[in-house]
Amino acid sequence: MQKPSSSDRSRLLGDPGVRVKNREAWVRKILEGDVRSASRLLTLVENQDPTAIPLLKTLFRHTGNATLIGITGPAGAGKSTLINQLITALRKEKRSVGVLAIDPTSPLSGGAILGDRLRMHPHFLDREVFIRSLATRGAWGGISPALFNAIHILDAMGKETILIETVGVGQDEVEIADLADVVVLVLSPGMGDEVQLMKAGLLEIGDVVVVNKGDLKESRRLFYQLQEMIPDRPIVKVAAEKGEGLPLLLSKIGRALTDAGPRGERRKRFIIEELRTLLRETIGKSVLKVSFDEKEVEAILLRKRDPYGLIRSWMKKGKI
Amino acid sequence: MQKPSSSDRSRLLGDPGVRVKNREAWVRKILEGDVRSASRLLTLVENQDPTAIPLLKTLFRHTGNATLIGITGPAGAGKSTLINQLITALRKEKRSVGVLAIDPTSPLSGGAILGDRLRMHPHFLDREVFIRSLATRGAWGGISPALFNAIHILDAMGKETILIETVGVGQDEVEIADLADVVVLVLSPGMGDEVQLMKAGLLEIGDVVVVNKGDLKESRRLFYQLQEMIPDRPIVKVAAEKGEGLPLLLSKIGRALTDAGPRGERRKRFIIEELRTLLRETIGKSVLKVSFDEKEVEAILLRKRDPYGLIRSWMKKGKI
Repeated sequence: MQKPSSSDRSRLLGDPGVRVKNREAWVRKILEGDVRSASRLLTLVENQDPTAIPLLKTLFRHTGNATLIGITGPAGAGKSTLINQLITALRKEKRSVGVLAIDPTSPLSGGAILGDRLRMHPHFLDREVFIRSLATRGAWGGISPALFNAIHILDAMGKETILIETVGVGQDEVEIADLADVVVLVLSPGMGDEVQLMKAGLLEIGDVVVVNKGDLKESRRLFYQLQEMIPDRPIVKVAAEKGEGLPLLLSKIGRALTDAGPRGERRKRFIIEELRTLLRETIGKSVLKVSFDEKEVEAILLRKRDPYGLIRSWMKKGKI
Repeated sequence: MQKPSSSDRSRLLGDPGVRVKNREAWVRKILEGDVRSASRLLTLVENQDPTAIPLLKTLFRHTGNATLIGITGPAGAGKSTLINQLITALRKEKRSVGVLAIDPTSPLSGGAILGDRLRMHPHFLDREVFIRSLATRGAWGGISPALFNAIHILDAMGKETILIETVGVGQDEVEIADLADVVVLVLSPGMGDEVQLMKAGLLEIGDVVVVNKGDLKESRRLFYQLQEMIPDRPIVKVAAEKGEGLPLLLSKIGRALTDAGPRGERRKRFIIEELRTLLRETIGKSVLKVSFDEKEVEAILLRKRDPYGLIRSWMKKGKI
């Protein structure tokens, strides 16, 4: 079995133009916000195709302008509905919007049926809105270079606000949403009482907390519980289905962005995590090419050494 | 949120005895074939608990004696039924048997309902048979140090033959079954015609090929197709449900083991893959602790450099 060459792969992607001479035109089109060009690059990124790297390197210097808003919370809390309303609200302020749906269960992501762009979506015809779902395939606990690159691409397209939708798992691993400039945690009544929320560690993320389905009577109880549990944080009741509470939410998000101070610190964390992720991928690939000393392998074969001991001795010698 | 300490973790596992002074006794019991002691260590291994490492290092020198037989093939081909019959046949020859079920869909693995050992299993009462399912959680494309360690533990228990059941995916990534001393590919009629088999790359693995459900009329067609496609390899018709064809299969497996010549080469590959896997895990964990040069991060923050360029310069400087 042989892997297809990169030019074969380009052809498989229906893309005869992945040549160096076309690279400049491709980059230019992405910078102009062209959806088709961005989608093509996103597909390469998703497939971890190395032909994307020169383009990503060129695009990178045009990034860093977008505001990143992480939208996280358990499945069923109404994140996608909220995002649709946020898009409407942001569009009223004439801001261009990008959305990355990383939650595989999200109706926004659409999956195989709807394709990358959602023809049924209320914002489908709006050129200033670009929605894309992303399959993460995260080795290493969910975070992959593709996520960082997808954000950079939307940023380079000129999207002023990028919404990143993830399922909040509340585990202690780094989540892409945590790396945003501001994180909105979306909860709704009936998803579990306060003890469960605390257990899940969910409340630890979220600069702004949304109590969705705020028109339901049960939401009042959740709202008061949250006020007691996290008195220091803004909690906003929203009825995303009806579009109620959005202006207040937007102003709280704006306030949180200001309170966070200069974006420097969060952005540094973002870059450090990006470097770490890239480093792991790079090293992981290079390990595949490592060749081992015949004598060392022999010693293990004869049970004179054990694998852990050998790795440790390599570390001591600074080989790793 | 704080991770539990390793002694907390030991206690969480219902295991107050994970102390250094008990380590020797624990190792001794595993070497005597004690199922409970082996199961406890397998659980630590599965959870990637570092307290397992000293035990694994000590056990390692008692390994390398078992014959490893990989049993692979598509889900539904009847691998588990075949394995049950193989156990019976091997037991008739008075060989002790270990089974590792890595296929998550395998009825052998039993999952949460049946627990580690299968109370319903025909060989449950036989002390010389040890069956264990293993959750792989394979970052890095499916293969994890846990798989190698599980094999070592069964080996150290004194199991003379270890059967490793996996789903043959036919991708070009390394599969644990490929690292066995001999690989049995299990197929059955009605799973797809020869073209599909070739497409899947499945036929490339398998030193011995089993046409299961050999009592069905359709199996004859598959048998002859395989004879044409892989004339150089032993193909055995088996009716695992009825226990027919097992003696022939065992003799073909024995022959394949002899034909493979001294086990050295396969065993070397096994060790090299084990080292590679350990290396990746070790490096992956150490990357989490890496700290980055403030100036370099700043340069990326200001878009004077890009992450790919920085990683490449580290590689050139030999930092990676």
